[in-house]
Amino acid sequence: MNTRFYNARILPMETADGTVLEGELWVQGDRIALVGDPNGREPLAFDREIDCKGNLLLPGFKNAHTHSAMTFLRSFADDKPLHNWLHEDVFPMEAHLTGDDIYDLTKLAVLEYVSGGVTAAFDMYYHVERIAECACDTGFRFTICGAANDFGGTAESTKQDFELLNRFGPLVNCRIGFHAEYTTSEPLLRDLAALSQELHEPVFTHLSETAAEVDDCIRRTGMSPIAYLDSLGMFNYGGGGFHMVHPREGDLEIMKARGLYVCTNPASNVKLSSGVAPIETYYRENIPVAIGTDGPASNNCLDMFREMFLATGLQKLTVGAAAADPIRVLHSACSVGADMMGRSDCNCLKEGKQADVVMLDLHTPNMQPINNIAKNVVYSGSKANVALTMVAGKILYERGEYIFDVDPEAVYAKANEIITRIRRSEGR
Amino acid sequence: MNTRFYNARILPMETADGTVLEGELWVQGDRIALVGDPNGREPLAFDREIDCKGNLLLPGFKNAHTHSAMTFLRSFADDKPLHNWLHEDVFPMEAHLTGDDIYDLTKLAVLEYVSGGVTAAFDMYYHVERIAECACDTGFRFTICGAANDFGGTAESTKQDFELLNRFGPLVNCRIGFHAEYTTSEPLLRDLAALSQELHEPVFTHLSETAAEVDDCIRRTGMSPIAYLDSLGMFNYGGGGFHMVHPREGDLEIMKARGLYVCTNPASNVKLSSGVAPIETYYRENIPVAIGTDGPASNNCLDMFREMFLATGLQKLTVGAAAADPIRVLHSACSVGADMMGRSDCNCLKEGKQADVVMLDLHTPNMQPINNIAKNVVYSGSKANVALTMVAGKILYERGEYIFDVDPEAVYAKANEIITRIRRSEGR
Repeated sequence: MNTRFYNARILPMETADGTVLEGELWVQGDRIALVGDPNGREPLAFDREIDCKGNLLLPGFKNAHTHSAMTFLRSFADDKPLHNWLHEDVFPMEAHLTGDDIYDLTKLAVLEYVSGGVTAAFDMYYHVERIAECACDTGFRFTICGAANDFGGTAESTKQDFELLNRFGPLVNCRIGFHAEYTTSEPLLRDLAALSQELHEPVFTHLSETAAEVDDCIRRTGMSPIAYLDSLGMFNYGGGGFHMVHPREGDLEIMKARGLYVCTNPASNVKLSSGVAPIETYYRENIPVAIGTDGPASNNCLDMFREMFLATGLQKLTVGAAAADPIRVLHSACSVGADMMGRSDCNCLKEGKQADVVMLDLHTPNMQPINNIAKNVVYSGSKANVALTMVAGKILYERGEYIFDVDPEAVYAKANEIITRIRRSEGR
Repeated sequence: MNTRFYNARILPMETADGTVLEGELWVQGDRIALVGDPNGREPLAFDREIDCKGNLLLPGFKNAHTHSAMTFLRSFADDKPLHNWLHEDVFPMEAHLTGDDIYDLTKLAVLEYVSGGVTAAFDMYYHVERIAECACDTGFRFTICGAANDFGGTAESTKQDFELLNRFGPLVNCRIGFHAEYTTSEPLLRDLAALSQELHEPVFTHLSETAAEVDDCIRRTGMSPIAYLDSLGMFNYGGGGFHMVHPREGDLEIMKARGLYVCTNPASNVKLSSGVAPIETYYRENIPVAIGTDGPASNNCLDMFREMFLATGLQKLTVGAAAADPIRVLHSACSVGADMMGRSDCNCLKEGKQADVVMLDLHTPNMQPINNIAKNVVYSGSKANVALTMVAGKILYERGEYIFDVDPEAVYAKANEIITRIRRSEGR
């Protein structure tokens, strides 16, 4: 399947400079064959030619930290700080989920992703093979992160998952991970660090999300979570932290030395009252920052436009009005997330890269007049602007329609059925 | 024109309790004739019957503070604190605006409002008769607030505008207002206070938006802006403050004694690094809180979903995860704004009220499963959910189409033409 987009404005996002090209984007199979001016190049045999009418093509958003299947708890568990939310609502309800539930609930998230311009998600959840199956069935791209902790998962099972998931084909890859320092005892942490060293693979985890978590780790180990994990050899091959709201003295040096990524999740951090991650500091220190929604139980939506506005806005609020340049935030959302997920093959619009492309409608009042397209996307864009979402060269969403084998009403019915069943079991 | 909505879920929002009815909503002319169960009532002669398919009807959002025509500066003046933004970018560019410009730029905002579920706006800008004309031509509801200050406007011109605007018919009303304490010298303030007392009318203004503004007023007058204005008799008939980010000791007592409204503008306050208004405190003290976008030059969009999430989220961040109950925030957005604008006739869905109604599509992934509809709207809703917007019984927007006499492309072209002309004049 080859597709030609013409009359397009294009934000390639190879760098964070916000350059907008005018011209064409050609897709051959699952890859980008041309970006910009065809310059007399021989046209491909196109199956479809799309007149973009001046609308904007950019790389799809990479949701670099989420728990997609938590859709079942959307607007069920709200208005509590992290610890209570986890222990009173999330853990007891999650205990009832089956593999089939996770498949269905992840599919609901995929509908939300593609209708919101998201082309890939870095997912941490259970029954990982069912998430991978959902990727293959929908055409959406998932990077799946292990979630081992004291209540489930071992280094051995993490290794098995790693091998299994990396055989699912080009839409799926796996990264070594575990839930968090505060849910994982030292023997298991040591086993996971050894696995990372055996496989030469980076490790990802929830990290320094709340001040209480950090304080507690310091009390137990004398070190911040990053320093403690690093002392176990966890980051010898790099990796990254989800949230990273509360770095302590010395943490930035470790992050830079190990090349760690940060994924910031501002809506979730706001709603759970966890704090504001110091993104502007990370930017200044050239620590790579990706952006994620976290799960829909804490957020409660999977909307990268909201995350981008918060990623820059909360820095302006806490640092100053010039903080967190919006073009850099857009680069974080489209590009750095892909790198963090080990999917640099879809981190920008460039010949040879995977064709993970979003078209945003600029013929809408919130995008006019056109003073600065990239700033418009970050400061004024919304899911309502998403006209088309393509993953690996296949259009999955176009102007309200899902272009893959799915019945959205059946997905909604299933999600309601699952939460109803679990509420009954829990008597709530 | 009579319209019947059936198979609807309905959030009447008469109170902040989040009750959802199932049933019908009947519109007769510009008013609501029935909400809920028809209970055998004789049907009207309906011109249109709309199967809502379980979707949600709620009162339209009231954008309780904006400068609509500032659309021309969207993504032009960013990343600066309020003072620099105003003096370096806004004031010089605004000086070139004609009445025709303001009409056209306001129409661009109306497109954004109705496609985002907003049914009325409390607008403070210049050439007020052109804003009123825009209301009449589009069918949108505007409450217009005077903007007198030392650079233009007097008590006499404010009175003339007040009389003129209140003759424009049911879509337009006027409130006495002025730009801000920091742009208005005492003689003019005294004249405006006298006008308020002559007309027995409340007064509205930008108030305590930045800490610098408050500190400066205290240095000059020995009083906070609220206390100083109140000492001039400005609030003898009530009124309200836009922003109210930085109340000082004693301010809350004045606000309660005078029955003042607050309109919070969280996105603008974040982006200009002005701070977080203490909404949770206002709620606790039963000070009525409305919500607005502020102008699109500082925001940069006119999206009440974003404002609602920020209104609750920033309280959770600064006070705690239980702060700023989302149902109360929804009530602020739909209902309290109408009261602040002197339009309690459209503050909820109830027989006899103006038919200002929005339909949100719940058959979308971000609204599923349906654990709590009102929380879903605040925590997960987006402009993409807006299926229909009705003002005064007329449908102005439905599923991507504007149902009034407007050519959106011509409106966009005009906005681009205006900013291009002004940039040239200013050599930028």
